[in-house]
Amino acid sequence: MTILLVEASARPLTSEGASHSSLSRSLARVFVRKLTEHSPEEEIIYRDVGESPPAFISHEWIGAVFTPDDRRTDQQKQLLSQSDTLIDELVRADLIVISTPMYNYGMPAALKAWFDQVVRVNKTFTFDLSRGDFPLEPTLSGKTLVLITSAGEFGFSQGGIRQEMNHLGPHIKVLSKYLGVQTMYEITSEYQEFNDDRHQNSYAKALRKLRFLARELADGNNQNRFIEKRLNMIGQQV
Amino acid sequence: MTILLVEASARPLTSEGASHSSLSRSLARVFVRKLTEHSPEEEIIYRDVGESPPAFISHEWIGAVFTPDDRRTDQQKQLLSQSDTLIDELVRADLIVISTPMYNYGMPAALKAWFDQVVRVNKTFTFDLSRGDFPLEPTLSGKTLVLITSAGEFGFSQGGIRQEMNHLGPHIKVLSKYLGVQTMYEITSEYQEFNDDRHQNSYAKALRKLRFLARELADGNNQNRFIEKRLNMIGQQV
Repeated sequence: MTILLVEASARPLTSEGASHSSLSRSLARVFVRKLTEHSPEEEIIYRDVGESPPAFISHEWIGAVFTPDDRRTDQQKQLLSQSDTLIDELVRADLIVISTPMYNYGMPAALKAWFDQVVRVNKTFTFDLSRGDFPLEPTLSGKTLVLITSAGEFGFSQGGIRQEMNHLGPHIKVLSKYLGVQTMYEITSEYQEFNDDRHQNSYAKALRKLRFLARELADGNNQNRFIEKRLNMIGQQV
Repeated sequence: MTILLVEASARPLTSEGASHSSLSRSLARVFVRKLTEHSPEEEIIYRDVGESPPAFISHEWIGAVFTPDDRRTDQQKQLLSQSDTLIDELVRADLIVISTPMYNYGMPAALKAWFDQVVRVNKTFTFDLSRGDFPLEPTLSGKTLVLITSAGEFGFSQGGIRQEMNHLGPHIKVLSKYLGVQTMYEITSEYQEFNDDRHQNSYAKALRKLRFLARELADGNNQNRFIEKRLNMIGQQV
């Protein structure tokens, strides 16, 4: 199994104390460590878009994408080389782990830049008007996505008081189709800004869920309904 | 009246033909031209984030933001200077016009980078835990936002077949609170990828709506309910 770990926080992992260290990174590291403990033969591809954001797509980039492979100039090939690399990493991955904070109720711009480089016509999707009103089809398939998010506020999940404001997980869920994702799990730590018991509790539950999920996936168990049920149960524990 | 025009398309306006030219930019220019025809004394601040994307926020940027004004180093002040400029433009604006394409069902990364630079603690919002579970409050108020969007597919508005996939307008609506927006209008051109009559029709309606809206706003009429009703009527015309 090959794991692609995409980390998007602008904050690094530090030992300077929790208030400076990235929670989403910290959670993702626990998850990947647990996973490799159970199944040490995993290959891990590490892509840090928080520390090194991908380029914004440009007019020239779009032009290069729509130029057939064999007619691209050297300059156009150069312009697409980062996208080529990022897509290659995605293609190789069986399991994608995206760890990201919520910034302004959505993705950090750096993570959106990654999606904009990776969702690319004739590479990760095809476009065909003969399909009618739904002309896009992804080319990849069968992947699992574990999305690990950290939010300063709370109530962003289904039925929560800020559900309608959440443009992080639901947006990535829409895009996951174009990553070839078949099964997606989302694990969230909330309340960071409040820095109270609720935050400790939310973070602790996220850790417990990630440890459980790592064990199941390492064992080759990817039965979505069973896992979701267990994750929900952990979420409801006091 | 001061207008802030934020344009986010990676594509410029060109005379090379519609397939290379930005539709969202083209619509925004018609709107602003119409507005200034009716009321020529407007000041226009032009911010092209598509051509010149703002910097991604970084760990150091977050550190600088949380350092009190009078204790910032010269390096920290430098790091925040772009954010200072963008916020200054926002503060001066009575009317904000954001023109943007939908990329991957959300904002272009460059527009998200603008929001991440502009939504800033102690500048555009305050944070106070004594407010309880809703500790954030915007500092700006009374502004009008006209959001002009262009999408390749269709059905992204309320009740449409892709409503749930739309993380562009609804996301900006959530964030508009932190721009000090009181009244927001969204005008959308869809079907670009299909390049058929439906696209021509959608674009033509967006133009009609923008001309109507420009006239009303230039006349000082900002009665939301009346304007929304008329915009809907234009949308339903054949």
